Amino acid sequence: MKIFKFVGLSILASSLLLASADLADKATKAGLKAIPTDNAALSKLIDPNKTITPERVELGKKLYFEPRLSKSGIISCNTCHNLGMGGVDGVPAAVGHMWTANPHHLNSPTVYNAVFFAAQFWDGRSPHLEDQAQGPMQAAPEMAAPPSLVEERINSMPAYVEEFKKAYGKDVKVDFKTITSTIGIFERTLVTPSRFDDFLNGKKDALTDAEKEGMNLFIDKGCTTCHTGIALGGSMQPFGITAKYKYADVGDFVGDKNKMVKAPTLRNITETAPYFHNGAIWNLADAVKEMGRIQLGLKISDDEATKIVTFLGALEGRKPEVTYPQLPKSTDKTPKPDFK
Amino acid sequence: MKIFKFVGLSILASSLLLASADLADKATKAGLKAIPTDNAALSKLIDPNKTITPERVELGKKLYFEPRLSKSGIISCNTCHNLGMGGVDGVPAAVGHMWTANPHHLNSPTVYNAVFFAAQFWDGRSPHLEDQAQGPMQAAPEMAAPPSLVEERINSMPAYVEEFKKAYGKDVKVDFKTITSTIGIFERTLVTPSRFDDFLNGKKDALTDAEKEGMNLFIDKGCTTCHTGIALGGSMQPFGITAKYKYADVGDFVGDKNKMVKAPTLRNITETAPYFHNGAIWNLADAVKEMGRIQLGLKISDDEATKIVTFLGALEGRKPEVTYPQLPKSTDKTPKPDFK
Repeated sequence: MKIFKFVGLSILASSLLLASADLADKATKAGLKAIPTDNAALSKLIDPNKTITPERVELGKKLYFEPRLSKSGIISCNTCHNLGMGGVDGVPAAVGHMWTANPHHLNSPTVYNAVFFAAQFWDGRSPHLEDQAQGPMQAAPEMAAPPSLVEERINSMPAYVEEFKKAYGKDVKVDFKTITSTIGIFERTLVTPSRFDDFLNGKKDALTDAEKEGMNLFIDKGCTTCHTGIALGGSMQPFGITAKYKYADVGDFVGDKNKMVKAPTLRNITETAPYFHNGAIWNLADAVKEMGRIQLGLKISDDEATKIVTFLGALEGRKPEVTYPQLPKSTDKTPKPDFK
Repeated sequence: MKIFKFVGLSILASSLLLASADLADKATKAGLKAIPTDNAALSKLIDPNKTITPERVELGKKLYFEPRLSKSGIISCNTCHNLGMGGVDGVPAAVGHMWTANPHHLNSPTVYNAVFFAAQFWDGRSPHLEDQAQGPMQAAPEMAAPPSLVEERINSMPAYVEEFKKAYGKDVKVDFKTITSTIGIFERTLVTPSRFDDFLNGKKDALTDAEKEGMNLFIDKGCTTCHTGIALGGSMQPFGITAKYKYADVGDFVGDKNKMVKAPTLRNITETAPYFHNGAIWNLADAVKEMGRIQLGLKISDDEATKIVTFLGALEGRKPEVTYPQLPKSTDKTPKPDFK
């Protein structure tokens, strides 16, 4: 009996191994890509202009966690893009300065793997992270800090100025652009390889059978039409192709000038509820079914949605270890917090 | 000439060495104490009930950074007691739920070295950190979360429940008391040895001459009357002994039932502006002069205040390295954020 069982398992295992190779091939042909394990290849992707240095990343990390970049002094990038919560805030619409919710009811997208996006913001108006970082800092319902205030705050702290010199040379101008770019450089490093990547990179047992089944279904249903590439998303797509989005009336966002909306990354998606640009759906299976209905014209069953969600769990990535930074102290010259 | 200079420096150095030993002795007699370097001695101080374990500290750290312990889901302990900013928020009066400033205009005290305080809160109403942690979480203008909501949120995430079991045994009841106590246990570890401690522990050159001069003046002026012990503060004291506090009209706080106010720790004080229970004074030298006037009946000159502030800089401590925690993901059962 014991031997019989053993033989049975062996056959099962080898048939799965074959299926795995096929599945990886199928995924690749559908445009899915792994985060490269090779440093040079990864570097080419996340750092095409060779701006990343350890000094800038360390400084960018400080700035990312720096609440004094906001008018009030209590909101940082990390407030809405929390590195401990999948890179988001877990609320439907971002809430910022003066407890104001995003006026268009927009949900904070994750910062993790955002370096792989073709465009930044839900309407794709920003080409890269360095540019994106300029937005929320100034936006009245977010950090509400005019560039002049940001520059004054940072330049009032000698320890910051010193770090900018170390990062860019002694003639650096510590201006709004350099400050926000440095945050972008830090964000470039926030990539999260997952078991999905291990699988595509050849580790056949990195996924469970159920995850492989879900992945197969994910491709068969056509989810990879939009959720493809390394980010499994991140590019502009028409929204509501086959039907109108169920919660189109929550907020007033209609997409870019062509009514296109950025397809969010599916990496770490199990950690970043609620979903959609307006954060209107909390349950991931519900989100999958809604996508089938409005993008693919398909009725995805509860069972199928569960299987796809099982696959999505394999996209939970290994987060970079971040040592919480010690920030320079304010001085008499530092502009005071302003809560109005 | 060169030899002469050398001899001169030698004489100066040895006279300072003697002065250092005297100064350390004087400081000790004035009640100043170093953070012990000996682990057993430190442990006895910060962990008298032997509740600290690595599992509880790690879990407590997660909870300390956990915004879902607030009603809104976006305010954590670290929002007002920021470990990267000397353990404070750097604003006059804490601002919390619904952008409400503390109604009594109370300034957030530092969490660093709070384990050494004789009492917690400005009015000393709480005996220890485990008890203290229950306050801000429930307070309407802070985290605004009733105990039942806190319990529901944490218990809705299996990864948290699992960690509580690891930390306390499988029969643990994950209730409000255990949740807040665990935060207190983490906070017990937040001690910051400084050059001041190194000096008292025998390293004579740990302080500069200017810092030693400032320390001597600090003791001579009588600052150690209240700012004494390991925390250089942390006990209840009468406030406004020789004159009325200049900003007594900012807020309505009058102290405990005996009108006593907790003397804040001076550790990391150079990093924790603004000062006093109502955060009304931003400049540390001004704060020192005000203390002289209202507590000691002394006119402390600008020059003397500068010297004392120089000494206070030596109390900037080495912060424990904190890896930013990855928090468990919400589930369908997790109560939703509530911004009202």
